[in-house]
Amino acid sequence: MLKKIKIGIAGYGNLARGAESAIAQQKDMVLTSVFTRRDPDSIRTGTEGVTVLTMDALTKEKQMLDVLLLCGGSAFDLPEQTPLYAAHYNVVDSFDTHARIPEHFQTVDTAAKSAGKCALISCGWDPGLFSLNRLYASSILPDGADYTFWGKGVSQGHSDAIRRIRGVKDARQYTVPQERALDLARSGAEPMLTTREKHVRECFVVVTKESDTAEEKQRIEQEIKTMPNYFAEYDTTVTFITQEEMDRDHAGMPHGGSVIRTGATGRDRAHRHVIEYSLKLDSNPEFTGSVLVAYARAIARLNEEGKSGAMTVFDIAPAYLSPLSPEEMRAHLL
Amino acid sequence: MLKKIKIGIAGYGNLARGAESAIAQQKDMVLTSVFTRRDPDSIRTGTEGVTVLTMDALTKEKQMLDVLLLCGGSAFDLPEQTPLYAAHYNVVDSFDTHARIPEHFQTVDTAAKSAGKCALISCGWDPGLFSLNRLYASSILPDGADYTFWGKGVSQGHSDAIRRIRGVKDARQYTVPQERALDLARSGAEPMLTTREKHVRECFVVVTKESDTAEEKQRIEQEIKTMPNYFAEYDTTVTFITQEEMDRDHAGMPHGGSVIRTGATGRDRAHRHVIEYSLKLDSNPEFTGSVLVAYARAIARLNEEGKSGAMTVFDIAPAYLSPLSPEEMRAHLL
Repeated sequence: MLKKIKIGIAGYGNLARGAESAIAQQKDMVLTSVFTRRDPDSIRTGTEGVTVLTMDALTKEKQMLDVLLLCGGSAFDLPEQTPLYAAHYNVVDSFDTHARIPEHFQTVDTAAKSAGKCALISCGWDPGLFSLNRLYASSILPDGADYTFWGKGVSQGHSDAIRRIRGVKDARQYTVPQERALDLARSGAEPMLTTREKHVRECFVVVTKESDTAEEKQRIEQEIKTMPNYFAEYDTTVTFITQEEMDRDHAGMPHGGSVIRTGATGRDRAHRHVIEYSLKLDSNPEFTGSVLVAYARAIARLNEEGKSGAMTVFDIAPAYLSPLSPEEMRAHLL
Repeated sequence: MLKKIKIGIAGYGNLARGAESAIAQQKDMVLTSVFTRRDPDSIRTGTEGVTVLTMDALTKEKQMLDVLLLCGGSAFDLPEQTPLYAAHYNVVDSFDTHARIPEHFQTVDTAAKSAGKCALISCGWDPGLFSLNRLYASSILPDGADYTFWGKGVSQGHSDAIRRIRGVKDARQYTVPQERALDLARSGAEPMLTTREKHVRECFVVVTKESDTAEEKQRIEQEIKTMPNYFAEYDTTVTFITQEEMDRDHAGMPHGGSVIRTGATGRDRAHRHVIEYSLKLDSNPEFTGSVLVAYARAIARLNEEGKSGAMTVFDIAPAYLSPLSPEEMRAHLL
């Protein structure tokens, strides 16, 4: 009988639940335990037979896990959690604060190496699958230009920023790529595209009863559109809706995007090529969870081979992600 | 100073010239020699300072090469050449006879292992980049369906098949994906698509003077459309043109295509996801050559690390393809 890969999940938010449902789809894996900062009795997992423990249990005693998926946030959780738990377990995180990746890699690498464990950081789709495509495409077409577009999708950070405005009861922000910019990127003309040209931001806002006046709405719209770093640099639309409309039409967490590289080859750059990788996702957390889970398989195998230390998706040969044997892959996927 | 990777090319057809122009774009590589079955004096390379030698020179004396790119055909050249030269050099080939890949892998693996060399087989875009995307996508979304579409692009094999018909002077065949099938594949409905539904075949034909009659053209069109394995299973169009039109409008070698995987996640498969990888190539041989060259970098590095044996793109971590350092990759591409 197949020895299943034992997975633990730290945190139990949207991403964790996405990973949980992804594990259920993989025949060679089993979710054994969930670790939470909340009262374990308050958590009802979607999978039968899963133990729910406090986060402390991870360091107090040795849990029987092949890989621990760290499903916390990049701002506060992962900078502490990943090095801490990499000193005990093989781990996978989705750390996505681009500017701090080099520093995060170093602290995690030190912890994982001294424990003989493998730690994959910054997994998911961006960073993650999009990064892979930037790497492959720029290695193959060194003379060219890269474009990354996000959306149409919900930005949690931007939605939160709107919710902090006085008079806002609920908000949802969609990042939407500009069709014209996508076409220009794909043209191979290697255009310089500004932030404003690449994406628009669509905001759907529910106001409190007290702010349900034309004047108040005008103020809120103005505050959104002029918010530096979040909206001021973009063409932003604000649409006021009711809570019922919000719940009915904006409950999902879709996302996606495209990585495009265009490049030229041959004499006088005579020939143009376009490589495009795109995602259209109904559920961002379920898809991201699915990526983490496929890479958990890779991490379990790499550690079994004796590898240790911090890694990124760049360091992992694709074959490690698949449940198929090398012979099956060559016969059916190559 | 950077020690450049020394590349040799065996064969000097379209793919070889594509690889030659790709090497010129890579700062860490140099093309040192071309090996040919023709008279070396008859070859004029596009790069200065390249030695042209007969194929025999590869086995008669040890050539100073880090990697040899095998640019022959899959039908007759590579089944012999790859195992032969893998016993002396690190090699990369573009073997694309899918049914014979397992057998080819074995013979090449034996030769390369005993010589302590690395041999990458079936590199290019399909097999190659498309295979990678089939592997990544099916590992991440195990519950789903795969679709590969080719074109719009020139099929050399199909063009040749038309040229063998009596009365045909020249021919060019384009494989064109059906828009309707592409849309269905992308819909996430996981349709079963027949060969006829997925692609059409557009043929442009120049007839000889003797066959330039309505009757003869009707016979040729009929012979094309009923040719088993090549055209009978497809909706095929035949357009008769003049040699001038052929030379003016059909001299390029464009190609491309899409690998699409759709899959479902979550409770009751509630959420659908679409992963699409697509290529639009002005020059098939120049792009394929560019892929071979990026992988030549990987093969040189892997052999330097002590690896040997046959490999496919599945076995190679993406980082090996890039000229950037791990730190640069994490800072700029992740």
